[in-house]
Amino acid sequence: MKTLQTYIDKLNKLNFKEMYNNDFFLTWEKTDDELEAVWTIADALRYMRENNISTKVFESGLGISLFRDNSTRTRFSFASACNLLGLEVQDLDEGKSQVAHGETVRETANMISFMADVIGIRDDMYIGKGNAYMHEFSEAVQQGHKDGILEQRPTLVNLQCDIDHPTQCMADMLHIIHEFGGVENLKGKKLAMTWAYSPSYGKPLSVPQGVIGLMTRMGMEVVLAHPEGYEVMPEVEEVAKKNAAKSGGSFKKTNNMAEAFKDADIVYPKSWAPFAAMEKRTNLYGEGDFEGIKTLEKELLAQNAGHKDWTCSEELMKTTKDGKALYLHCLPADITDVSCKEGEVDASVFDRYRDPLYKEASFKPYVIAAMIMLSKFADPATILKKLEEKGTPRIFK
Amino acid sequence: MKTLQTYIDKLNKLNFKEMYNNDFFLTWEKTDDELEAVWTIADALRYMRENNISTKVFESGLGISLFRDNSTRTRFSFASACNLLGLEVQDLDEGKSQVAHGETVRETANMISFMADVIGIRDDMYIGKGNAYMHEFSEAVQQGHKDGILEQRPTLVNLQCDIDHPTQCMADMLHIIHEFGGVENLKGKKLAMTWAYSPSYGKPLSVPQGVIGLMTRMGMEVVLAHPEGYEVMPEVEEVAKKNAAKSGGSFKKTNNMAEAFKDADIVYPKSWAPFAAMEKRTNLYGEGDFEGIKTLEKELLAQNAGHKDWTCSEELMKTTKDGKALYLHCLPADITDVSCKEGEVDASVFDRYRDPLYKEASFKPYVIAAMIMLSKFADPATILKKLEEKGTPRIFK
Amino acid sequence: MKTLQTYIDKLNKLNFKEMYNNDFFLTWEKTDDELEAVWTIADALRYMRENNISTKVFESGLGISLFRDNSTRTRFSFASACNLLGLEVQDLDEGKSQVAHGETVRETANMISFMADVIGIRDDMYIGKGNAYMHEFSEAVQQGHKDGILEQRPTLVNLQCDIDHPTQCMADMLHIIHEFGGVENLKGKKLAMTWAYSPSYGKPLSVPQGVIGLMTRMGMEVVLAHPEGYEVMPEVEEVAKKNAAKSGGSFKKTNNMAEAFKDADIVYPKSWAPFAAMEKRTNLYGEGDFEGIKTLEKELLAQNAGHKDWTCSEELMKTTKDGKALYLHCLPADITDVSCKEGEVDASVFDRYRDPLYKEASFKPYVIAAMIMLSKFADPATILKKLEEKGTPRIFK
Repeated sequence: MKTLQTYIDKLNKLNFKEMYNNDFFLTWEKTDDELEAVWTIADALRYMRENNISTKVFESGLGISLFRDNSTRTRFSFASACNLLGLEVQDLDEGKSQVAHGETVRETANMISFMADVIGIRDDMYIGKGNAYMHEFSEAVQQGHKDGILEQRPTLVNLQCDIDHPTQCMADMLHIIHEFGGVENLKGKKLAMTWAYSPSYGKPLSVPQGVIGLMTRMGMEVVLAHPEGYEVMPEVEEVAKKNAAKSGGSFKKTNNMAEAFKDADIVYPKSWAPFAAMEKRTNLYGEGDFEGIKTLEKELLAQNAGHKDWTCSEELMKTTKDGKALYLHCLPADITDVSCKEGEVDASVFDRYRDPLYKEASFKPYVIAAMIMLSKFADPATILKKLEEKGTPRIFK
Repeated sequence: MKTLQTYIDKLNKLNFKEMYNNDFFLTWEKTDDELEAVWTIADALRYMRENNISTKVFESGLGISLFRDNSTRTRFSFASACNLLGLEVQDLDEGKSQVAHGETVRETANMISFMADVIGIRDDMYIGKGNAYMHEFSEAVQQGHKDGILEQRPTLVNLQCDIDHPTQCMADMLHIIHEFGGVENLKGKKLAMTWAYSPSYGKPLSVPQGVIGLMTRMGMEVVLAHPEGYEVMPEVEEVAKKNAAKSGGSFKKTNNMAEAFKDADIVYPKSWAPFAAMEKRTNLYGEGDFEGIKTLEKELLAQNAGHKDWTCSEELMKTTKDGKALYLHCLPADITDVSCKEGEVDASVFDRYRDPLYKEASFKPYVIAAMIMLSKFADPATILKKLEEKGTPRIFK
Repeated sequence: MKTLQTYIDKLNKLNFKEMYNNDFFLTWEKTDDELEAVWTIADALRYMRENNISTKVFESGLGISLFRDNSTRTRFSFASACNLLGLEVQDLDEGKSQVAHGETVRETANMISFMADVIGIRDDMYIGKGNAYMHEFSEAVQQGHKDGILEQRPTLVNLQCDIDHPTQCMADMLHIIHEFGGVENLKGKKLAMTWAYSPSYGKPLSVPQGVIGLMTRMGMEVVLAHPEGYEVMPEVEEVAKKNAAKSGGSFKKTNNMAEAFKDADIVYPKSWAPFAAMEKRTNLYGEGDFEGIKTLEKELLAQNAGHKDWTCSEELMKTTKDGKALYLHCLPADITDVSCKEGEVDASVFDRYRDPLYKEASFKPYVIAAMIMLSKFADPATILKKLEEKGTPRIFK
């Protein structure tokens, strides 16, 4: 039977000291040990919650959430993670603030961070912008802390940028680890990250990029499949190649969905916009060329419509390993005949995987909480131990 | 002098074990003992707050509020109840989430509930929809808990649906109980739930329905008065009839406001829309017939305007028991010459009852907190006792 | 080295008993001892946070924030202050509530305050309205408490009204005190509160008014400078005159920015709208004369444009004491060539003072928290002592 000590023992074998007082931007900026530490603490926190042991490590303090895009799930995941640790969430909604009125990032970052222990930012709209913005923000509060303006250094969790979606992909991976019974069982498994048709336009690249940037580290055979013209960022492909070489796995590309699905252990069919088009859109926004944006949107929708056969059908699922590949999605999915006429996945496939999909999502708050703990505590293993010894029930009894 | 032990002793005589791990949808789905338990815990929590004894039973956890309609009062009541028990409120505002973009209830329910101990929903707009939606939501999270997606089962509090407004009516009743010195003194008292004119359109039926569904259980003589055409849901009238028969009281209907007010001990004059019209509106919305909705609205306003004499005037108040019936309203009221030219009540009547009206409203947060406690703790009496023994002050001293 | 005892000893010499169970509207309604108590507790709370000592004095309770205008900074400052003390913030956003639908202040005030320990209001838009509204609100909840509707009396913190901006000016002053090494060093120092050009229209008067109403109390030589036609409220000028006479300082007015800057120890150059124009605008709103408002706006912008030479330039800064006056601003500033073509301050001046400006702002949450503590605790010195003895770490260790 698992006990908290199991997780603590595991943590004690890992080196993650660089995570202390640090941000979480991209998974490939972290070592294997560091990622392992995130999953281990995530599991430990879940274990503690299941056993009614309070994990409240902050008596007070704020978690600031800054979303530049609508989001139910990520918003609630971040709020849940903060709440689990004792931080109160304060949303910076640019609509109701003065941010829109020309404040500089540097100033805003400091003005909202006087009591902020952690900042969660989602900024995935424009290629070349989101990740850069997060760095700018982080540097501003680091400087503010150095200058004695902020009593603490707020650390940053990337809740989705133009390059990576680390909280999503780390949750996806924790789900895979649980399904396959451990990281050690992933070597040689085939994972198909494939494009799929959706009637909507301009879905972010951060998930496919995050997936190939992370999943190639475990010795898996990762295949990235998409129609011609739906390339992701070349830099991230480079990351995937290097990861595969290092981990003894492989990273292949194909324009053939069936090839990717063939004998796959895991499939992740999902729509995204072509990198080059997103880059073009970013430039058009920069130039204020709204006519150009409309034209681009029309082109992209037409381009999409040429690939309606890229869908996760029952037929394709049958070609996967024993016809039972683990189906992943970051949700919400575009389900054929449910949320749209033609979409990313057949309704019967989606329905069969509903429970695992929800379970996959359920790891996200724990992953975020683990990232926060690792950034705020030099020795989280001891903290977990002390919390268990203290034994404050989460729900009074 | 009352002590906490008084409430605990009372609780120990009641059977409410079915409320544990359960939702609160409609008062008439609950036994007399169960309702009594809500009032008793509400009073106990208020006693504890008055005596600076912390009632924080959750170290962490979220209370999700989901409002499909604007609301200051209910929103703050729910937030207050959650805060009193240690839950942090997280609003699901459909405007800022992706709910509007076609997510299914099942999925959303689970995605926002990873750390949710309780969900408060207000959905009173469309006949046949609100209560059904709440059940769908509740079933989704129960399934999610069973499937290991959610560590806990979030219980649901109906903050107003198309059928009942249980937190309001339970607060109204607790107010009555306090005013009349106990449930035992209500037998034979006359309560007039009457329609009253308001210049606005389409006020929900949940209050009159909730009132006749609840107040008929205490042996009171309940009269429902409204102009012809302002009928409430027939199912709820059936509930009221059965309640009255069982409790030894009565349930009568009249189209004469004066008759209802005559010798009444309690009056509750309030505008609402005809049930049949609301049903029609629901269908028009379903068909997307916005022209039809506009026409219906005009008809309803014209229909309303024919009943401006249905108002809680000083003259009518004089005809009540000793001219001093207890005047109730769920607030905000349409006050003649204050909030509108002609409304539900004379300004002088409203002013005389301002204090009792605010007191009536002040029970709502405690009623909601009691519902939460009863759904989350198998033995709330012991919990209250232990909280008193622990004696953590709400405000440090 | 400073210890908490230093602050406690200081508090024990001050008389601030009138602040208990009281509101904070205007600085000039408070005694010198009372202001000193705010600064002392603000410093003590900051000391405790720096030393990881929890200052959570509320186990539960709400801080209600009511903003009638957009605001990032004040919103986050209030939220930070509440969080520091253990109160959860609940925003009353008039957009998403029924307040807009004609509820009276009296009713709303009570309906949202059932669990409210403190209310923060910002209402600075209309001359003659904001402060009056706050008083109305405060009286309503006091009455509600007296009548047994509210278990506690929520005290009010003025987060900016039409007359004063006490949390801003108290933070400004605490910054000055720190920069100059103590209140006792301020006697004879010259402070220039001067108007400065901004391309925007209708900035509130509360900062210049708050500054001359507060800074004249410390024996400083306060100069209020603005172009003709940019007068502030005459009542506040009277306050400033009396303060200066009492404190042994001076209060002078000039229409010459250079004269104000000459040899100044502290400069506070900032745009505001003429009092008379704001009064006119308030009346136009009252009459619903939107055409008149547009015309007024145009006039004011034209009037502004005639004073572009009123800017905090490097040249002017050189004329201050040793060319090194402390530059203050409530932020955000209109910075020439950064946030606008021509603004309140040269970019190089602003950049040089960026750190002190952020530090200035960082006092605001602590000042607000101090105001809350003084209103909720009869003996805050003992509370601070007990918190230190209890020694709960803010971040678990």
